[in-house]
Amino acid sequence: MVKEVDKRASGQRVVLPKKIVVVGANVAGINAASAVRKTDRKAEITLVEKGKEPAYSRCGLPFVLSGEIPRFEDLILFPPSFYKMMKIDLQTETTVKTVDPKKKTIQVEMKDGTKENMEYDSLVLAIGAHPFVPPIKGWNCPGVFPLRTIDDGEIIQKALETAKSAVVIGAGFIGLEAAHAFVNKEINVTVVEIFSQVLPAMLDKDMADIFQKEMEKHGVRVILSKGVDEILCEDNRWVRGVLVAGEKINADLVVLGMGVRHTTDLASQMGAEIGKTGGIKVDQRMMTNIQDVYAAGDCVESYSLIDGQPCVCQLGTTAVRQGKVAGVNAAGGYAVFPGVLGSTVSRMFETEIGATGLTEFSAKRAGLKTVSGSLAAKTKTKYFPNAKDIKVKIIVDQELGRVLGGQIVAEEDVAQRINMISIAVQKQTTAWELADADTCYAPPVADTWEPVALAAEVASKRIRLT
Amino acid sequence: MVKEVDKRASGQRVVLPKKIVVVGANVAGINAASAVRKTDRKAEITLVEKGKEPAYSRCGLPFVLSGEIPRFEDLILFPPSFYKMMKIDLQTETTVKTVDPKKKTIQVEMKDGTKENMEYDSLVLAIGAHPFVPPIKGWNCPGVFPLRTIDDGEIIQKALETAKSAVVIGAGFIGLEAAHAFVNKEINVTVVEIFSQVLPAMLDKDMADIFQKEMEKHGVRVILSKGVDEILCEDNRWVRGVLVAGEKINADLVVLGMGVRHTTDLASQMGAEIGKTGGIKVDQRMMTNIQDVYAAGDCVESYSLIDGQPCVCQLGTTAVRQGKVAGVNAAGGYAVFPGVLGSTVSRMFETEIGATGLTEFSAKRAGLKTVSGSLAAKTKTKYFPNAKDIKVKIIVDQELGRVLGGQIVAEEDVAQRINMISIAVQKQTTAWELADADTCYAPPVADTWEPVALAAEVASKRIRLT
Repeated sequence: MVKEVDKRASGQRVVLPKKIVVVGANVAGINAASAVRKTDRKAEITLVEKGKEPAYSRCGLPFVLSGEIPRFEDLILFPPSFYKMMKIDLQTETTVKTVDPKKKTIQVEMKDGTKENMEYDSLVLAIGAHPFVPPIKGWNCPGVFPLRTIDDGEIIQKALETAKSAVVIGAGFIGLEAAHAFVNKEINVTVVEIFSQVLPAMLDKDMADIFQKEMEKHGVRVILSKGVDEILCEDNRWVRGVLVAGEKINADLVVLGMGVRHTTDLASQMGAEIGKTGGIKVDQRMMTNIQDVYAAGDCVESYSLIDGQPCVCQLGTTAVRQGKVAGVNAAGGYAVFPGVLGSTVSRMFETEIGATGLTEFSAKRAGLKTVSGSLAAKTKTKYFPNAKDIKVKIIVDQELGRVLGGQIVAEEDVAQRINMISIAVQKQTTAWELADADTCYAPPVADTWEPVALAAEVASKRIRLT
Repeated sequence: MVKEVDKRASGQRVVLPKKIVVVGANVAGINAASAVRKTDRKAEITLVEKGKEPAYSRCGLPFVLSGEIPRFEDLILFPPSFYKMMKIDLQTETTVKTVDPKKKTIQVEMKDGTKENMEYDSLVLAIGAHPFVPPIKGWNCPGVFPLRTIDDGEIIQKALETAKSAVVIGAGFIGLEAAHAFVNKEINVTVVEIFSQVLPAMLDKDMADIFQKEMEKHGVRVILSKGVDEILCEDNRWVRGVLVAGEKINADLVVLGMGVRHTTDLASQMGAEIGKTGGIKVDQRMMTNIQDVYAAGDCVESYSLIDGQPCVCQLGTTAVRQGKVAGVNAAGGYAVFPGVLGSTVSRMFETEIGATGLTEFSAKRAGLKTVSGSLAAKTKTKYFPNAKDIKVKIIVDQELGRVLGGQIVAEEDVAQRINMISIAVQKQTTAWELADADTCYAPPVADTWEPVALAAEVASKRIRLT
C-alpha cells in the first residue's frame, strides 16, 4: 500500500487519495473497481478476494463442460496485467473477518493466517451468492456438486471421465446447461424439477414445454412436479443415484441446480439492512443503509423496473451494471441503477431460449391482469434456405396495454430480440406501439413482418376483450 | 364479379358488400388486400396488376443472382390458392387506364386489349416505383439493366453466363447486393458512386468505410466521388464498358443501382396531391386528398417518426405496413401508420450492415445538432470461440440526449440490434436510458455488456460537452 505523506504542514494543499476497498473480485467487484478507477484516477483501490481466481465468468462454466469453450482458464476475464494497468491492488486468498463501519476499517486474514487492518473511505460489498443446498438426505455425498465455481467445474469435469449417468436437480438455466453438457459427453441425464415445467422462473409453461420437447428429443429424461426424496450414497463413498417418488434413478453424478442464495454474512455483521427477499438492501445508487458502504451483484436485493418492487435478480448482466454504479458512487461520482427486468438468454440443444420482464405467471402473482400474444414464425424470410422456427410470446397489461415481458424459443437470433422487447418494456411501450415497430428486413437475416411485432399485435387485439 | 341483387324492395334489409379495388399486386397491394379481407369478410376485393407475377419479394432478387436463394419463383410470396382462400379477385396483366374519382369508377385494359369499367367504394393505389435512369449517354444500350423486377433478374442471370466483368452504377443496397452476387459468380466488379462513400443514404462515412474495405477485400473495385460520363455501347448491340473521369472500365454488364422514383402517374391523373419529395401525399390513415382513395408503398411520401417531416422511404417493410393500414381503412376499419425510421439491413460479403433513424449527416441536414458514440466489440463473449467483430455507432441529439439513430457493421447479429435501436428511437429513449438497457447475456450468444448499450454510453458522455 502506498504510504501517505500529508504535506499540509508544509503549506502545500494536498488532497489525500480516497481509499476504496472492494470485497469480492467477481464480475460485480471487478466492475466496481474499474468504475472507481475511471471516476477517480488517484484513488487507492484494494480488491479483496477470498478465492484463488479473480473475475471469471460463472455463466461460462457449463459451456466448458459441454466442450464449447476449450478451457476453464478461458473464463478468467482479465490477465494480471489488467489489475496493474488499472492500479488495482488485487489481494486473492484474502478473507474479510470484520468490518467496523464507524471507524471505517476492515480486518482481513491472508492465506498464511496473518491479519491486517485496512482503512476505507468507501467500501463496496460484492460478496455474491452461494448455491442452495436442499435439505435432502445424502446432499453431502461425494459425487453431489453444485456448479458455481471453477473448482466445482473442474471436479465435475473429472467425474465426467468415468460417469455413465447423471441426475440434475432443478431445471433452471444452470441445471439445464449442465444437462446439455452431459448429453454432449454422451452421458444419460435425468432432470428432476419440483415445479410443473422447466425454467419456471423464466418462462410460462406453454413456452417451457416447447423447449422441454427439444431436450427430450436429445435424450434427456425430464421429471416434473416431483422432488428428490433422497440422494443415494454408497458407503458414504460415492453417489449411486436418487429416489424420486419411490423410483430409484441411477446416477454416478448429481448436480444441484436449485439456484443460489444471497451471501449476506458480512453485511449483517456490520448492521446493514437485509431486504425481504434475503438480499442486502440498497438504494438506487447501490448504497446500503450504512453511509459509504455500497453493495452490488448477487448479494443485493434488486428492484423491478416495472413496478419498483423488490425482487431477486442474480444475473451476470445485473451484477456488472450494479457493480459499475456502486463503483462510480463509491468514488464520489454520481450514478443510478434504474432497476431490473431480468432479461436472460441461453443456448442449449441447438435451441436459444430468452425472456425479459414478467411472465404471465409472475404478473398474476404481482396482481396484474394480463393478456398475451403468441406466434410461430420463421427467423428470416421463409423462402430463404435455412430459415429457422421461432416462437414468440408477448405479455401485456390488460388495462394499460403496456408490454410487461416477452419470451422466445427459437433455433437462432433470440438474444437481440429479447433486448428489443427489454427496451420496449423499459420505455413503457404499448402492445400497439410494439406492433407498429419500424423493423428492418433483408431475406438472409430477417422477414418483412418481425415476429416480435406480430406477437405484440396478437396481444393487442386481446386487450380489454377478455 | 358477383352480381348484386338488392333485396330492399322485398323489405329485407340487405347491406351490399363493399367494393374495394387495389391497384398493384406487390407487397403493399397484397397486404392492403389481405387487410381488407381481415377487416370485412364480405367485401368484394379486386386486385389489379399489370405484370404477370403477383406479390414477389424484390429484395430477394440479388440473392437469387448470388445463388443464395435457388430460384426466382421462390420469391413469389403466395400460391394462387392464397388469393382463392382470401377471396381476392386477382387480375394480372391488367392495366388501369383511367380513374374517375367522382363517379368512383376505374377503367382497366386486359391483356387482350378489351376494356372494362369497375366501380369502387374504396380504391387503394399501390403502384410502386420505377428505377431512376440517369441522363447518361448509352443508358439504353443492351446489357444495361436495372434490378427491380423478376424480368430484370432473369435477363441479368442470363447475361452472367457469359459476362467477364460488370460495372454497378450506384452504391446503394441494390447496387452493392448485385456486386456481391457478381463476385459470387466470379465476375470482376467495379462499383461507381458519385458520393464520397458507399451506402450514402444509410451510413455515415466512417461506418461505410468499414464495409467498403470488406468489399475491396473480396475484390470489388470501388470508385467514389465520380460519376459515369458515358456508357460505351458497341454498335448499339451490347455494352462494352463505361467512361469514368476519362478512364475506360470494361464491362459486359452494367447494372443501374441509382435508386427508384415514386410512380405517381395514375394518382396525378385523378388529381391526387403529390408531396414535395415526389411521392403521393397521404395522411396517417394512408388516405390521399381524394375521399376514399388510399395509397401505400413505394409510390407514397412517408413521414419521419422523429420529426414528422415528409421523407422518402421505399422499403419493403414500410410498404407492407402501409399497405395493411391502407387496407384496414379502405375496408371501413380504423388504423394509423405512425411514420418511418427507415430501419434497414442487408448481408453481403460475410458482413451484415444495418441502420435506423438519422445518420449524423442526415441529422445535420435536418438542422439537428448531434453527438455520436462508436464502439468496436465482439458479438458474444470474447472467450467464446467464433465471437465476431461488431462496430456500433449511436447518433444522439446533443441538446435533448435523445437517440436519433444507429448504424451497425458486423459479421453477424445486426438485424435485431437495429430493431432494438429502432424501438429506442421510436420511444424517444435518451442515450443514458439506452446505456442502462437491461440486456441479456449468455456466453454462446451475447456478452455481458451489450455493444449497443456501450455505444450509447460513449455518446451520452459527449452530450453538452461539445
